[in-house]
Amino acid sequence: MTVALVMFVAHSVALAKPDPASWNDGPRKDAIVSFVRDVTRRGSAGFVPPEERVAVFDNDGTLWCEHPTYVQLAFLLEQVKAAAPDHPETTDLDLPALLELAKVAESGMTVAAHEDSMRAWLETARHPRFDRPYTDLVYQPMVELLGYLRDHGFQVYIVTGGGIEFVRVWAEEVYGVPPEHVVGTVSEVTYEVRDGEPTLVRGSKLDFVDDGPGKPVGIYRAIGRRPIAAFGNSDGDRHMLEFTAGGDGSRLSLLVHHDDAEREYAYDRAAGVGQLDVALDQAARDGWVVVSMKDDWSRIFPFEEPR
Amino acid sequence: MTVALVMFVAHSVALAKPDPASWNDGPRKDAIVSFVRDVTRRGSAGFVPPEERVAVFDNDGTLWCEHPTYVQLAFLLEQVKAAAPDHPETTDLDLPALLELAKVAESGMTVAAHEDSMRAWLETARHPRFDRPYTDLVYQPMVELLGYLRDHGFQVYIVTGGGIEFVRVWAEEVYGVPPEHVVGTVSEVTYEVRDGEPTLVRGSKLDFVDDGPGKPVGIYRAIGRRPIAAFGNSDGDRHMLEFTAGGDGSRLSLLVHHDDAEREYAYDRAAGVGQLDVALDQAARDGWVVVSMKDDWSRIFPFEEPR
Repeated sequence: MTVALVMFVAHSVALAKPDPASWNDGPRKDAIVSFVRDVTRRGSAGFVPPEERVAVFDNDGTLWCEHPTYVQLAFLLEQVKAAAPDHPETTDLDLPALLELAKVAESGMTVAAHEDSMRAWLETARHPRFDRPYTDLVYQPMVELLGYLRDHGFQVYIVTGGGIEFVRVWAEEVYGVPPEHVVGTVSEVTYEVRDGEPTLVRGSKLDFVDDGPGKPVGIYRAIGRRPIAAFGNSDGDRHMLEFTAGGDGSRLSLLVHHDDAEREYAYDRAAGVGQLDVALDQAARDGWVVVSMKDDWSRIFPFEEPR
Repeated sequence: MTVALVMFVAHSVALAKPDPASWNDGPRKDAIVSFVRDVTRRGSAGFVPPEERVAVFDNDGTLWCEHPTYVQLAFLLEQVKAAAPDHPETTDLDLPALLELAKVAESGMTVAAHEDSMRAWLETARHPRFDRPYTDLVYQPMVELLGYLRDHGFQVYIVTGGGIEFVRVWAEEVYGVPPEHVVGTVSEVTYEVRDGEPTLVRGSKLDFVDDGPGKPVGIYRAIGRRPIAAFGNSDGDRHMLEFTAGGDGSRLSLLVHHDDAEREYAYDRAAGVGQLDVALDQAARDGWVVVSMKDDWSRIFPFEEPR
């Protein structure tokens, strides 16, 4: 009697899980909801057991704002300026030169000190247009989607072209994604006992670039399963979406299209940051879902009122 | 009323979780049980929330038998012999030459085909002394310990010096450790679309060696948290145990000492495979737990009767 009652309650809760609220009704929301229904319904041809329900999300431009420039790049610029205050010309550096300087600035730091410096910067830095902390500029519909997938037994991973440490310091608090579910670009790190303390120290080289064709490789290394759902927004995500779509059974590959200059930014084929060109053609050819931020999302940021 | 009853039942189940049965009573079992009690009891000074209860296990010699040689090496030898049937002298090759040939043999294979070849080999291969499949030769007390830690909210990872794919193909079935919880040595892998199929292909180089000082780096990459418990058996695990012990709060670093020539093998300071020398001295100095397979385990393999 008690057991039956508990099972009934548990079943009702499972049925009652809400769709992501900030998605407007229409074909894109339908594609997500019907995919999730298909892979989670026992007895359906598309059923996938929970341990194989791996969903991977790009971060920059897919889960949070990447314009006018990548947030990590804004951090690196500040760090280089702080390390070289006698060289005001650093503000005019081009990207490769900046990255080169940043690598030198971070080299020899412990991983823990590096994390602290990123945390401290994120607490005070503000987005130039929205004048808010960068961690406010996450996409509310995507945050809801992360929760929606987790509620349906998915393992949700971030697979970012950005530095793994940069995303790990805030992803758990902001997205509910723990450090072990962040895959990213990795700098050379070595183990040493420094002043009697076992510690990890950053080198000056990149060890692995988790972008473009590197994303399926990053997934192989960290997860060892082919995802069944992949979410991106730029050409750097194309291989990840293609690799995901290439498996058997139900698959969902989805691109976020930045087409809302009023509430956020509008960019695609010609963008310097977050270029979406080849992947947009492939989406049309291969039947990937392309989300219009303007039409499909009732709000973009958590601080907005739905419209 | 129903809620109270359910909570009561859940609480009773938690209390009823058995200690690992194949461990003999004594100081080593006490060290494990009291560590787990300390980090899981709410309100205790040593309490650690479940998401931070990361436990890492070496594989060869810690979870399964590594003598007379590493199982993966036996596989590689077979593979090289199969690839070069006209060169019977391969049986006499030394280790570096064998590894070099094996890398060439595996180069250009898809990851999926490589996994299939390992699975097929494991089904028929037999251990030369025990005449059983290698996957029978796991240590029953350690398999129980994996379950005991999981029952207490730990996230259990394997951190192996061996190839990540080699362990992933059987770790879930044998240990209950899923692919995403296996950290290991990684060969160069590239993404390509081969005959229209998005796929991962093995190269001929090692990309990352997850051994010795590489183990804390592998943990950093894949987990991003410092473990609170680490289990090993050889000098290659020393840095991982030291890194684990170097964090704040309750920590458990444990070495399995192979001292049972009758039921398994006896080796330590002079061993060619699984040498335990520097780590044994450090264990004494730093207070790590050293397990005697002979005295502390009532049985070694699952197929034995407890004695």
